[in-house]
Amino acid sequence: GFVKIDHHRKRRQGFPEIVFGEGKTAEQILTIVQSLRTRNDSVLVTRISRDKAVFVQKECSDFEYNEIARTLAWVREKPKSVDSYIAIVCAGTSDLSVAEEAAVTAETLGIPVRRIYDVGVAGLHRLLDNIDEIRGATVSVCVAGMEGALPSVLGGLVTNPIIAVPTSIGYGANFNGLSALLSMLNSCASGVSVVNIDNGFGAAYNAAIIYKLVHKGGQL
Amino acid sequence: GFVKIDHHRKRRQGFPEIVFGEGKTAEQILTIVQSLRTRNDSVLVTRISRDKAVFVQKECSDFEYNEIARTLAWVREKPKSVDSYIAIVCAGTSDLSVAEEAAVTAETLGIPVRRIYDVGVAGLHRLLDNIDEIRGATVSVCVAGMEGALPSVLGGLVTNPIIAVPTSIGYGANFNGLSALLSMLNSCASGVSVVNIDNGFGAAYNAAIIYKLVHKGGQL
Amino acid sequence: GFVKIDHHRKRRQGFPEIVFGEGKTAEQILTIVQSLRTRNDSVLVTRISRDKAVFVQKECSDFEYNEIARTLAWVREKPKSVDSYIAIVCAGTSDLSVAEEAAVTAETLGIPVRRIYDVGVAGLHRLLDNIDEIRGATVSVCVAGMEGALPSVLGGLVTNPIIAVPTSIGYGANFNGLSALLSMLNSCASGVSVVNIDNGFGAAYNAAIIYKLVHKGGQL
Amino acid sequence: GFVKIDHHRKRRQGFPEIVFGEGKTAEQILTIVQSLRTRNDSVLVTRISRDKAVFVQKECSDFEYNEIARTLAWVREKPKSVDSYIAIVCAGTSDLSVAEEAAVTAETLGIPVRRIYDVGVAGLHRLLDNIDEIRGATVSVCVAGMEGALPSVLGGLVTNPIIAVPTSIGYGANFNGLSALLSMLNSCASGVSVVNIDNGFGAAYNAAIIYKLVHKGGQL
Amino acid sequence: GFVKIDHHRKRRQGFPEIVFGEGKTAEQILTIVQSLRTRNDSVLVTRISRDKAVFVQKECSDFEYNEIARTLAWVREKPKSVDSYIAIVCAGTSDLSVAEEAAVTAETLGIPVRRIYDVGVAGLHRLLDNIDEIRGATVSVCVAGMEGALPSVLGGLVTNPIIAVPTSIGYGANFNGLSALLSMLNSCASGVSVVNIDNGFGAAYNAAIIYKLVHKGGQL
Amino acid sequence: GFVKIDHHRKRRQGFPEIVFGEGKTAEQILTIVQSLRTRNDSVLVTRISRDKAVFVQKECSDFEYNEIARTLAWVREKPKSVDSYIAIVCAGTSDLSVAEEAAVTAETLGIPVRRIYDVGVAGLHRLLDNIDEIRGATVSVCVAGMEGALPSVLGGLVTNPIIAVPTSIGYGANFNGLSALLSMLNSCASGVSVVNIDNGFGAAYNAAIIYKLVHKGGQL
Amino acid sequence: GFVKIDHHRKRRQGFPEIVFGEGKTAEQILTIVQSLRTRNDSVLVTRISRDKAVFVQKECSDFEYNEIARTLAWVREKPKSVDSYIAIVCAGTSDLSVAEEAAVTAETLGIPVRRIYDVGVAGLHRLLDNIDEIRGATVSVCVAGMEGALPSVLGGLVTNPIIAVPTSIGYGANFNGLSALLSMLNSCASGVSVVNIDNGFGAAYNAAIIYKLVHKGGQL
Amino acid sequence: GFVKIDHHRKRRQGFPEIVFGEGKTAEQILTIVQSLRTRNDSVLVTRISRDKAVFVQKECSDFEYNEIARTLAWVREKPKSVDSYIAIVCAGTSDLSVAEEAAVTAETLGIPVRRIYDVGVAGLHRLLDNIDEIRGATVSVCVAGMEGALPSVLGGLVTNPIIAVPTSIGYGANFNGLSALLSMLNSCASGVSVVNIDNGFGAAYNAAIIYKLVHKGGQL
Ligand SMILES: Nc1ncnc2c1ncn2[C@@H]1O[C@H](COP(=O)(O)O)[C@@H](O)[C@H]1O
Ligand SMILES: Nc1ncnc2c1ncn2[C@@H]1O[C@H](COP(=O)(O)O)[C@@H](O)[C@H]1O
Ligand SMILES: Nc1ncnc2c1ncn2[C@@H]1O[C@H](COP(=O)(O)O)[C@@H](O)[C@H]1O
Ligand SMILES: Nc1ncnc2c1ncn2[C@@H]1O[C@H](COP(=O)(O)O)[C@@H](O)[C@H]1O
Ligand SMILES: [Mg+2]
Ligand SMILES: [Mg+2]
Ligand SMILES: [Mg+2]
Ligand SMILES: [Mg+2]
Ligand SMILES: [Mg+2]
Ligand SMILES: [Mg+2]
Ligand SMILES: [Mg+2]
Ligand SMILES: [Mg+2]
Repeated sequence: GFVKIDHHRKRRQGFPEIVFGEGKTAEQILTIVQSLRTRNDSVLVTRISRDKAVFVQKECSDFEYNEIARTLAWVREKPKSVDSYIAIVCAGTSDLSVAEEAAVTAETLGIPVRRIYDVGVAGLHRLLDNIDEIRGATVSVCVAGMEGALPSVLGGLVTNPIIAVPTSIGYGANFNGLSALLSMLNSCASGVSVVNIDNGFGAAYNAAIIYKLVHKGGQL
Repeated sequence: GFVKIDHHRKRRQGFPEIVFGEGKTAEQILTIVQSLRTRNDSVLVTRISRDKAVFVQKECSDFEYNEIARTLAWVREKPKSVDSYIAIVCAGTSDLSVAEEAAVTAETLGIPVRRIYDVGVAGLHRLLDNIDEIRGATVSVCVAGMEGALPSVLGGLVTNPIIAVPTSIGYGANFNGLSALLSMLNSCASGVSVVNIDNGFGAAYNAAIIYKLVHKGGQL
Repeated sequence: GFVKIDHHRKRRQGFPEIVFGEGKTAEQILTIVQSLRTRNDSVLVTRISRDKAVFVQKECSDFEYNEIARTLAWVREKPKSVDSYIAIVCAGTSDLSVAEEAAVTAETLGIPVRRIYDVGVAGLHRLLDNIDEIRGATVSVCVAGMEGALPSVLGGLVTNPIIAVPTSIGYGANFNGLSALLSMLNSCASGVSVVNIDNGFGAAYNAAIIYKLVHKGGQL
Repeated sequence: GFVKIDHHRKRRQGFPEIVFGEGKTAEQILTIVQSLRTRNDSVLVTRISRDKAVFVQKECSDFEYNEIARTLAWVREKPKSVDSYIAIVCAGTSDLSVAEEAAVTAETLGIPVRRIYDVGVAGLHRLLDNIDEIRGATVSVCVAGMEGALPSVLGGLVTNPIIAVPTSIGYGANFNGLSALLSMLNSCASGVSVVNIDNGFGAAYNAAIIYKLVHKGGQL
Repeated sequence: GFVKIDHHRKRRQGFPEIVFGEGKTAEQILTIVQSLRTRNDSVLVTRISRDKAVFVQKECSDFEYNEIARTLAWVREKPKSVDSYIAIVCAGTSDLSVAEEAAVTAETLGIPVRRIYDVGVAGLHRLLDNIDEIRGATVSVCVAGMEGALPSVLGGLVTNPIIAVPTSIGYGANFNGLSALLSMLNSCASGVSVVNIDNGFGAAYNAAIIYKLVHKGGQL
Repeated sequence: GFVKIDHHRKRRQGFPEIVFGEGKTAEQILTIVQSLRTRNDSVLVTRISRDKAVFVQKECSDFEYNEIARTLAWVREKPKSVDSYIAIVCAGTSDLSVAEEAAVTAETLGIPVRRIYDVGVAGLHRLLDNIDEIRGATVSVCVAGMEGALPSVLGGLVTNPIIAVPTSIGYGANFNGLSALLSMLNSCASGVSVVNIDNGFGAAYNAAIIYKLVHKGGQL
Repeated sequence: GFVKIDHHRKRRQGFPEIVFGEGKTAEQILTIVQSLRTRNDSVLVTRISRDKAVFVQKECSDFEYNEIARTLAWVREKPKSVDSYIAIVCAGTSDLSVAEEAAVTAETLGIPVRRIYDVGVAGLHRLLDNIDEIRGATVSVCVAGMEGALPSVLGGLVTNPIIAVPTSIGYGANFNGLSALLSMLNSCASGVSVVNIDNGFGAAYNAAIIYKLVHKGGQL
Repeated sequence: GFVKIDHHRKRRQGFPEIVFGEGKTAEQILTIVQSLRTRNDSVLVTRISRDKAVFVQKECSDFEYNEIARTLAWVREKPKSVDSYIAIVCAGTSDLSVAEEAAVTAETLGIPVRRIYDVGVAGLHRLLDNIDEIRGATVSVCVAGMEGALPSVLGGLVTNPIIAVPTSIGYGANFNGLSALLSMLNSCASGVSVVNIDNGFGAAYNAAIIYKLVHKGGQL
């Protein structure tokens, strides 16, 4: 076969394998997805176009497509509502796509999320108005493009870990996200670590590991 | 001669020529400085080492050396105190050298300044505690290294123009100030324009032009 | 809602919020625009395609689309003609799109502009022929691509502030505007500050703040 | 004063302020350190040279200088030994300085660490021989220079979070750590987030926050 | 003519000229291909689209098009099966296109290959399960994108030479293959040399020269 | 021997070999220089420190050291004065070192030069005052650092060829001469070609070839 | 008007203005072209698509479109054949487009050219077979992509000036021509100067100025 | 201990471990060296300063220091002279240090080498005069700085593999070896693979593996 599906992954890594849709055909995705759903409680495909999603949904009608996040997801059972959560914070409306990829990823992994969107630093009151909800999160995913200043400001306001995601939103000297990436790596606030440009999935995965560690006393 | 001093500059540009000390010998600087002081009301040398400054001061004992800013300055007459001013805002103690270069430049050009230092965004309360003084300024110079987020936050809080100066302070993915430079160019706040990395002089010069325009009704 | 419109912005910043059209749907833009026009005296959308503009104009027939600038603008009342103005200077015909974005932005903010186009440094006489008009401006926006030399030459000829805008016009070692951007940041002329590549809007906004400060004695 | 010490930081952030020694004089560091020790249970200075450390130790003889890490540290009381720990993993002997900065930082923050050094991927058996100890850690700090491949391999072998630190170790196309930085950001392993080049301090700080969250049930 | 076909190449270089299809018209390729087949025992066109290949196949019906590798190839006689071989190793399914270009190139040059695909370092067991087959190869071509860590790990496990090929697979801080390229150039494993990003052809050509040298006692 | 001196070079290239002093010991330079002077009418060493020059001068007392250009030169006979010349134009006093390297190179090759220094574009009148002398040159070498705008302006004012030399003079976003290099490569003026950063020698060599072609009717 | 045509250019620069077609509409080009032809003996448009050329040709039927060069050209009178010429040398068939732009430019400026194509350094005999024709040229334009090594080899073989043109031909670590550009700037051969990536026009223009100087004894 | 010496390496990799001297103290090197010599037939330290070498030689008087290569080497027995060899080819005298590191490395690994130095492409005859000796080598190491064109030219002239080493020799747009590195990666000659900038050791190691494979029929 063209791919070796990693069925032991859940045991080894605590979460089932997640499918990276880009560069795979609709047929390949369908094959993988059908194999995964028989042995796991959730299945997630990221970076999948509407066309391919529709193709898969013909066979897997209970899979949900998220237009903005470009994800196709299925969970056997909705997680029960709990008090603790991951905060998904984003700076501008243009960052929504990456923020939603993070949100859907966390939810599919069974973690409750709260969305705090459009709170960029150029209108500080929007962030300050929502700071208590972010402080209440076990861990935050913080998404920003352009100058990527949000994690620095947030890092000074909250105690818990922040996973920063630079986005490629912007133009000119933004250089496809380089500007936000460098900002976040150089953040003078402590408690901030960084993932790849536009990698909403990776940030949520990191946040999910931390969340599970905290709320299960160190056992994944 | 090795250099043509531009004595018409004050008439043409509104301010006398300012000497860039780097790469000039102490003797060259002395010659230029003596020529300038006879026809102007102030003289400023930037990026000059203590050694060279001491050499010049032997002949020009009323010139003042600023250790942190690395400037040598002389003004015929202290400006009378007035209500309006330029704010020199800086993020961290490591940015002091650039901030002071800006402050001394403005003062030598006859403009009152107020210093608001060490108010970086990772400890937001420090900025908010001083925001009224910055709002009161005709124009602000905003100096920051590392992720260079301060102008973005400030730009959302004040109405008047902000001249942003990225500094080369930082390490690793800071790439000698590139990180702060890109942040400032991509600022999502309006009212922010940018000068070269570590160019405190240039920022103050821009701010001084604006200040003079405003407080003399359009006449420099 | 997908976006929080910032209706206090005019009070806080002196100018109403301006809509960044890129990445928004025609429907989203229409919603925002209708909300803004009820509470402001002007509305501006930048980086909007003809298609989306036409969609909005169906409901808002008094909005004007500028093909070159790619802006959609509406002002309640034309500004009365006055003597003072902002100069929009550009180097070549390829820079027109950015220069027009600047011009429309300033006009929508209620500031008179004069356009001095196609005066690049490789044909110096064109610039010198127009230098008096540029000298008469309160502040200039100076737009140039390729080697971006115009602000340096202009900076030596005029006293008032210059906001330089590098454009992405060029090819090869231009690297999408990097060449012009670096030139402008390294300008050896004083009185020049810089905004992001192709950011005609930002330059005009900066110029507008300065203009208002000057012509209203420090009150925005 | 030249600096505003942030005494509320421990309350706000869960850990006391840590002093960045680079660019501060020995006298400045001494002043800060004496002020901090009266109100905290530990004090840490990073990036401090032996000379400056010796100067401080004259007044603060119970402060310990770590030659490799270039840290000066003091803790009121040694932490009681516990079963859980942070793993500090590093690829080669040249990465020791950054790894030790991380180790000392964590220890000063009161967190037990285990050092697993010189286990780079070009001699895989060294890593596999130590994998159980790394798997036992609540969270790992993973330090590597040159091609920075270690976090990717480790990420596939362990479940808990990994904070990756690229180092500037290498030459030629290493470009001062860029090579390792890009590797880590592009890691195809999940559960890896990244901090700035050579930022052992930042990685340990992130790991410490996570450790405290996990072992105190969500309360810092 | 628009091109001078190098018919002495086989004598000079040991292998016939291989046609680089990109930027050539279908007609040009056909002309070259027909000229080459009369004097050689194999013909290979790389980077050729399906459309152009179909056009050539109308005249040359025994030419085979490989969809994934985007190659068009013809060999007079299949090579006899032998025990020795080149290993083509690749990290992920997205690298398949480059790996197949390498495989087809080697096969067309008359060298037996074995494909070991989808053995990236984030799931180390997949590599270890196949290590004996790779160790058995005279020389390996090792293809990887994203962080490009595979050659470093492989280099520590095998004795024979490894030709590493970075691919442009990835996104964000991958910068079109720069990340994998730098990783491979900085590999701390010995026995690894590198070719251009996505250059499967070049890697296979290098491997083929080595293979022929080894199995013919130094005579090509 | 450690080096093969190219004694046929004058016949092949029209000019004798010129010695690149950097990275050679004083002894090596002396050996080469003594060998060259026996068969040529001039000898030139570039990028040589005062110390090494003094060492060579002990044996070769008629060699002249130029402190600013860092050249050591000897000509058998001064060239007779003629009307035609190369213009060496430079923007600022900091570019003097590169300009002098160019001037000494041309002179040693037997070409008359005229120096037009300190005529950067930020004070345009200085250039315009000297334009007739530059127009009179057969070919110009144009040296500039920082934003490197001078060749663009000059290119629009003169007809004859311009060899542009970017210098590494500047700081911050100058990136060691990258800014001036890109400016010159993107010059919108025709008639400008470019050599490496700080390569005064190369520019003068190019100019000398052109000069000789012109004034000897095509025969070198 | 949208553009100020520079009719004095021929007098000032020795050659008439040449039209850069990119980014202009067919209508704009037609207007300019008709204006230019009345006052000049030749007209040249570069970087013009077939579509726009056909549009112009409807009015200007004696204009010739060159498909490969993407130029539209007209000369009042063919130049008389002479013995001297410019050599246009190129490395591979993929560089043809840039080489032809250079050739057409020179021809339209009235300079005889000889084309020596497909003589890249990887098959050195092709270059050596043609070296006498290149040595016979007054000046050479040397076009190469990928590693851009041709000017270095050529520079060691010929005496007269070489204008090197890097092309964007290549892939991967070619970075759109950066690789060839850097090679040419760092050429260890003397007598080589460089123009922008893909700038066949600029190279030919430089060569034409030199040619005219040489063959008219210093008078353009 | 501070380091785990890899004594099984010779069995696993075919060659004993080689010590990277940079960043190790003289004492550390001595310890490692004494441990290695008891179990191997040769010992090599690269990148070691004269001072440290002298320290080691006090205990190990039969170790030889190579000033140019900066290596310290010992072999139990000189290799018997044989007909086959590795060619170490280099472009200029400034590349000698890297070439010698390669030569000493190969010799210490027991492989005969021939040095063909100072044969850069700008004086082609020097290369052509030596081409037969290079053609006779089993494999060549090809070292070049500046534009790094030598491997491209060589690759077209020889059949056997070439390991190319870019050096950091040059200045300006050389960017510390980037220029030569990109040239070599983009070489249009087949049979060329590349190692890190200045990595003479790595190139020789690769060449040594190939040499051993060829001359021992596939057994290391
Ligand atoms: N062309 C433009 N370039 C950069 N910023 C812009 C532009 N047009 C509008 N803006 C800014 O974008 C903000 C609105 O962004 P948004 O909320 O995404 O519509 C406004 O406050 C402006 O400051
Ligand atoms: N080695 C280090 N690298 C990065 N940040 C550090 C380091 N050491 C301390 N810091 C941070 O620097 C801040 C103190 O900076 P300062 O006020 O300049 O001493 C602390 O709050 C820490 O978050
Ligand atoms: N995919 C490829 N990547 C790089 N070089 C190639 C490729 N395919 C063929 N070549 C080389 O390109 C040369 C032919 O180029 P051309 O004359 O343009 O067809 C051959 O001699 C090969 O060495
Ligand atoms: N000059 C060199 N450049 C790159 N790698 C080297 C060099 N010299 C030795 N090495 C490698 O470095 C390893 C030893 O590193 P270390 O354990 O730090 O001494 C050896 O196994 C070699 O593979
Ligand atoms: Mg925090
Ligand atoms: Mg503002
Ligand atoms: Mg000015
Ligand atoms: Mg993991
Ligand atoms: Mg190996
Ligand atoms: Mg000209
Ligand atoms: Mg030559
Ligand atoms: Mg070859």
